[in-house]
Amino acid sequence: MSDVVPPEVRPKPAVPAKPPNVGAPSPSSPFPPQGLGIGGGGVSAPPPSAIPVPIGSHALSHGVGHGGGHAGGHPAAHSVGHGHGGSHSSTGGSALLGYIGIDTIIEQMRKKTMKTGFDFNIMVVGHSGLGKSTLVNTLFKSQVSRKSAGWARDEKIPKTVEIKTVSHVIEEGGVKMKLTVVDTPGFGDQINNDNCWEPISKYINEQFEKFLKEEVNITRKKRIPDTRVHCCLYFIPPTGHCLRQLDTEFMRRLSHSVNIIPVIAKADTMTMEERLEFKQRVKKELETNGIEFYPQKEFDDDMEDKSDNDKIREVMPFAVVGSDKEHQVNSKRVLGRKTPWGIIEVENPNHCEFAQLRDFLIRSHLQDLKEVTHNIHYETYRAKRLNENGGLHPISSNDTQESNL
Amino acid sequence: MSDVVPPEVRPKPAVPAKPPNVGAPSPSSPFPPQGLGIGGGGVSAPPPSAIPVPIGSHALSHGVGHGGGHAGGHPAAHSVGHGHGGSHSSTGGSALLGYIGIDTIIEQMRKKTMKTGFDFNIMVVGHSGLGKSTLVNTLFKSQVSRKSAGWARDEKIPKTVEIKTVSHVIEEGGVKMKLTVVDTPGFGDQINNDNCWEPISKYINEQFEKFLKEEVNITRKKRIPDTRVHCCLYFIPPTGHCLRQLDTEFMRRLSHSVNIIPVIAKADTMTMEERLEFKQRVKKELETNGIEFYPQKEFDDDMEDKSDNDKIREVMPFAVVGSDKEHQVNSKRVLGRKTPWGIIEVENPNHCEFAQLRDFLIRSHLQDLKEVTHNIHYETYRAKRLNENGGLHPISSNDTQESNL
Repeated sequence: MSDVVPPEVRPKPAVPAKPPNVGAPSPSSPFPPQGLGIGGGGVSAPPPSAIPVPIGSHALSHGVGHGGGHAGGHPAAHSVGHGHGGSHSSTGGSALLGYIGIDTIIEQMRKKTMKTGFDFNIMVVGHSGLGKSTLVNTLFKSQVSRKSAGWARDEKIPKTVEIKTVSHVIEEGGVKMKLTVVDTPGFGDQINNDNCWEPISKYINEQFEKFLKEEVNITRKKRIPDTRVHCCLYFIPPTGHCLRQLDTEFMRRLSHSVNIIPVIAKADTMTMEERLEFKQRVKKELETNGIEFYPQKEFDDDMEDKSDNDKIREVMPFAVVGSDKEHQVNSKRVLGRKTPWGIIEVENPNHCEFAQLRDFLIRSHLQDLKEVTHNIHYETYRAKRLNENGGLHPISSNDTQESNL
Repeated sequence: MSDVVPPEVRPKPAVPAKPPNVGAPSPSSPFPPQGLGIGGGGVSAPPPSAIPVPIGSHALSHGVGHGGGHAGGHPAAHSVGHGHGGSHSSTGGSALLGYIGIDTIIEQMRKKTMKTGFDFNIMVVGHSGLGKSTLVNTLFKSQVSRKSAGWARDEKIPKTVEIKTVSHVIEEGGVKMKLTVVDTPGFGDQINNDNCWEPISKYINEQFEKFLKEEVNITRKKRIPDTRVHCCLYFIPPTGHCLRQLDTEFMRRLSHSVNIIPVIAKADTMTMEERLEFKQRVKKELETNGIEFYPQKEFDDDMEDKSDNDKIREVMPFAVVGSDKEHQVNSKRVLGRKTPWGIIEVENPNHCEFAQLRDFLIRSHLQDLKEVTHNIHYETYRAKRLNENGGLHPISSNDTQESNL
């Protein structure tokens, strides 16, 4: 394997215009070498060994090291280079000969996504009056929150933490998203808030359990409905002081089962100086308390990812303002909050960090939030459940018995 | 649920330019209504019920039916319409207010695919001399076949069917595909070809078993290596007569575990008239023998899918010619076969149906081939295995015991 030149370091061919980059899988490629060989009588499969050369080349020997022929299935090729014949460099049409269409997979996946749509489930946590409903409405430019969906505004604060979900299908550019907003009324609103994260943790785990049961069913749905919480917006009250014990306790306890994105709520109650100072303090406290929020450093895929996420982590937690009212500013209608001393424009980056939060949450990391939920949080839950069960899947029949979590 | 207007039939708003299409999930949407409510003490979750209206609208009552407020979690909304305020139709900037960014999911998925790449595994079956290696080389514009990868051309025909795999990473437009070509030398080449599909069926099932074992492991890989055969090109010899019993037997036996795409090999040995006649005969025989090939009618997703696939099924099996040699035709270099009476251009649709096969296999259905393999063939295998096992997953430890298939 080690004598195979990885695709990255091979010289780029001068022609054709869309050259297929072909090489045997190498350790530096995203495809780790797998034991493709399978055992068993009469069946042999030598590992990938040779570098193919593009066809249609008239100078195959040019720069190409051919491995010796081997018949018995033993890899013997020592391909050390890769060259292209230059003989068709002068012909105009030769470029097309090289195009296969591998990159059309992107378009094929786009079409499939346009047909199926996708699920996204967002949870909001924080005590009452921090603008949770308004913020999700602002994020999704529509009345998607629980309060907008028929609940009375003057609804009493529940005596224990409740979990309320409301779902809507939102379509944009032909892409359908089934958005579920999971609200947690009652959180932090009691005299004694001991264990008030428990109903929330329970809900998150129940969704994992539901998914696990579907996954281990003998007859599975083509697409398992995904009710798992992909993202939890945690609303830090803009006290100007420090994090409360409830804040750190909640985030610490939940950060290993859900992607927590802390935000500083109602940031317009602070001047820019106060905001900056408070933010620094919150950042420091999150760090000293060892709270890992999304995007977690340990899950950065590569250096590019790390660099992008470092920039985001640097400005987190976002100090945000939400609004579902439009106002006229310089002949434009903007979402904002009108006061006698001016209009706070929620999407103006000089006024608050809402636009940064929205770009991060929806436009750059939404797919990643779903993948981290599936690959990390769900996998952690699943491994724990299976270990409890002595390595056996808790196969459920159709009349599903409740999990005893 | 029934009184909720599905997104499709709601009147299109005149403004904004990129209006989010928002509605409660309805039976006609791709998201079937799910029981989102979860039971359990203190937790209540009413089903999605109301249609949200876009925020920022100054005429909320215009065309909007509001449901009565409800406090106890009982759905009571009777939203029957959906309107947009016209008040901001005159302002230029209002369009932007409506954009959320849901459709950026496509770009996010593209980026992920560019990073991870994907696997594609193609099997070729047919007796020796039908141009199997040449055809895969032509499809992927490079020497990807077994014979090109170091095996001697004069290799003897094995005495039993063997399975030989060779893998390469091909990159195009920044997308990396790990292509594995699974060759089956010896198939149909014996005096007695009884059961010669068995090693092939065994290989296909072994890949399913491998995947299943990875899938049920307690600690799973982030991405399970996919060695499952996504597509099996079956080469029908251009006899001009009818299908041989071996052809029908192979296809019938394997069609429920792999996507079979039958092709008429070396179509240049027949005149256009002979080809048409042979093709019609083969089509009829496939039909009378009840052989289902890919794309299978029963897996058409919707009417659009059906209509597209009907057109493809109509022209199948493709009569193809492969070539890995370039020739000059009208100052263009084309892949073809040069004879004293002319050059057979493999990508010329007037000469053969190679281009149609390539477009179908790579440029329009590659992702679907992978999905049908996963959702249908693998699921069938998995269900069978689990049923054999009394509904329990065959959880494997790290030192995997061999399956007894």
